[in-house]
Amino acid sequence: MRTTVGWQAAGSPARLRRVPLKRRDLRPDDVAVRVDHCGVCHTDLHALSGHDGTHPLVPGHEFTGVVTETGAAVTGLGVGAPVAVGNIVDSCGECPMCRVGQENFCHAFPTLTYGGTDRRDGTTTLGGFSREYVVRDRFAYPLPAGLDPAAAAPLLCAGITVWEPLRALGVGPGSRVAVVGLGGLGHLAVKLAVALGADTSVVSRSPAKADDARRLGAEGLIVSSDPAQMAEVRDRFDIVIDTVSAPHDLGPYLRLVAMDGTLSQVGHLGTLTVDALDLLVGRKKLSSAGSGGTPATAALLAFCADKGITADVEVLPSARVHEALDRLRRNDVRHRFVLDLSDLD
Amino acid sequence: MRTTVGWQAAGSPARLRRVPLKRRDLRPDDVAVRVDHCGVCHTDLHALSGHDGTHPLVPGHEFTGVVTETGAAVTGLGVGAPVAVGNIVDSCGECPMCRVGQENFCHAFPTLTYGGTDRRDGTTTLGGFSREYVVRDRFAYPLPAGLDPAAAAPLLCAGITVWEPLRALGVGPGSRVAVVGLGGLGHLAVKLAVALGADTSVVSRSPAKADDARRLGAEGLIVSSDPAQMAEVRDRFDIVIDTVSAPHDLGPYLRLVAMDGTLSQVGHLGTLTVDALDLLVGRKKLSSAGSGGTPATAALLAFCADKGITADVEVLPSARVHEALDRLRRNDVRHRFVLDLSDLD
Repeated sequence: MRTTVGWQAAGSPARLRRVPLKRRDLRPDDVAVRVDHCGVCHTDLHALSGHDGTHPLVPGHEFTGVVTETGAAVTGLGVGAPVAVGNIVDSCGECPMCRVGQENFCHAFPTLTYGGTDRRDGTTTLGGFSREYVVRDRFAYPLPAGLDPAAAAPLLCAGITVWEPLRALGVGPGSRVAVVGLGGLGHLAVKLAVALGADTSVVSRSPAKADDARRLGAEGLIVSSDPAQMAEVRDRFDIVIDTVSAPHDLGPYLRLVAMDGTLSQVGHLGTLTVDALDLLVGRKKLSSAGSGGTPATAALLAFCADKGITADVEVLPSARVHEALDRLRRNDVRHRFVLDLSDLD
Repeated sequence: MRTTVGWQAAGSPARLRRVPLKRRDLRPDDVAVRVDHCGVCHTDLHALSGHDGTHPLVPGHEFTGVVTETGAAVTGLGVGAPVAVGNIVDSCGECPMCRVGQENFCHAFPTLTYGGTDRRDGTTTLGGFSREYVVRDRFAYPLPAGLDPAAAAPLLCAGITVWEPLRALGVGPGSRVAVVGLGGLGHLAVKLAVALGADTSVVSRSPAKADDARRLGAEGLIVSSDPAQMAEVRDRFDIVIDTVSAPHDLGPYLRLVAMDGTLSQVGHLGTLTVDALDLLVGRKKLSSAGSGGTPATAALLAFCADKGITADVEVLPSARVHEALDRLRRNDVRHRFVLDLSDLD
């Protein structure tokens, strides 16, 4: 076994403690990655608040770093290669979804980057809030030159989560897109939709975010608490990307969707409740998205390198992880926290 | 005012009684229709069970008959013309939805055939369980020659409700369609999907319906209570039309939808509850449908005339309306009851 250092949950409510961690010895198709930067995702908050102590928990599933060692069969990555890893580190590889490159929908369930069960040794996976990660080579993506490693880390979860529905729903020049919420997912959805050529607007409770929305490339901001503004854009948008992470009424956002359009809900995993009439009137569709497959992730990284897109990040030394989590819980971040893990050396 | 006879709700629980009814004198754009046949829809059961007695209730919103008189400005319909009327008898005509021929989505809410509020005199509309109906001409559709008037009546509600999503979702040759339930809506969905060229299957709790499914043109029947059969067709269908009228878990049917496909829920109006993961995994969409606009309704009637499609009906004299309602409540009908209203003369 290899040893490294990371931030592991302990106690109830769970706090993170800096502890020594073990990583597996490299299999032939593994690479070892020195983790330099790891984004802080809402999923990390959920995992910590729901942690029952029965399994070890090290959060973190959007990170960038450098390959430090390769298994005997690895050909595509060499020592020193900058790489990025997202929230999936393995899948069955044989089911219809894996065969079409949608490992995120693997029928046998993909192996999650943390809190997952390794398919070969049955151990619980430990995430990227650590200095080293060992990962199957095909789930370590070469990080294109020109992308800042800290600001690119959130592309691997927040980015791919909004990229998949934008692409699947055919967003391009002339598309009318609204993005609800301007957090980690929302601000990347705006940047990507704008770069794809869409007329993009932001929907937010906070009128103070109007300048920020325009800076990101949006045409403007619709204040969701203002019924007149919401009524004015009824049936306006081909696609609404709803990034609100708390359970909420989808009705007001469905009413912004144009005839035959789609509301893609990407912020909240759990039960969605919708009035059939809110779908029926205007023949609207509800979808949900999260994560992505390996071809789409590689395509996103290439697109971002081409367009110069990364996340807007606040980088903190990993020792300040609790400050990042506390502020994320209060939505006090523009727009994504990224931990710098070099302080673990 | 004109007088006619119809079946009106009285008492609690509501029973229908044969009573004299008033119809408005013809406006310039009205036609009077002698109602010959009216289908019995689940909506009628809901309306009766929810009837609180504050407004008069005469059910019935899919009927055929013959024009007996026309208003001064009516040009498209003459006395003696066979016509069909559905569940919408007026709309604002000015909103974006009306302007694109989707009066069923009228922003000012369409006037329903019964239980609606007439846009000009404010009275409560009374439905087609009566011998005469007075309707604005543009909501009376010429009934194509060759369609049996009794068997065509259900096309106006059950038919158009499943036709709209089949068309909106692009069903054609090569499409893989599953229809859940084989009642009034379901059996028409099968006939229409098959006629559109789709490979069509039926999903039902009852294996006894397999012969019926094949007679309607389906390739076969999947027994929804058999986990092995349901697992075998996982991710199989581009479109699943769910006609189950009671509240139910959408998860098992969403799992039949292929990647990027759609579950269209047409049987149940009310709150829909869905697990985000059932949408997320396979990037599936949920939609809902009901009724249709005037161009789509006319197109449906033309398509049915061309393909020789009508509903499979049991025709009962209208005096046996309670027998029809009781058996419909028990799903004991193949596949739609139609009342013959000539016994009201």
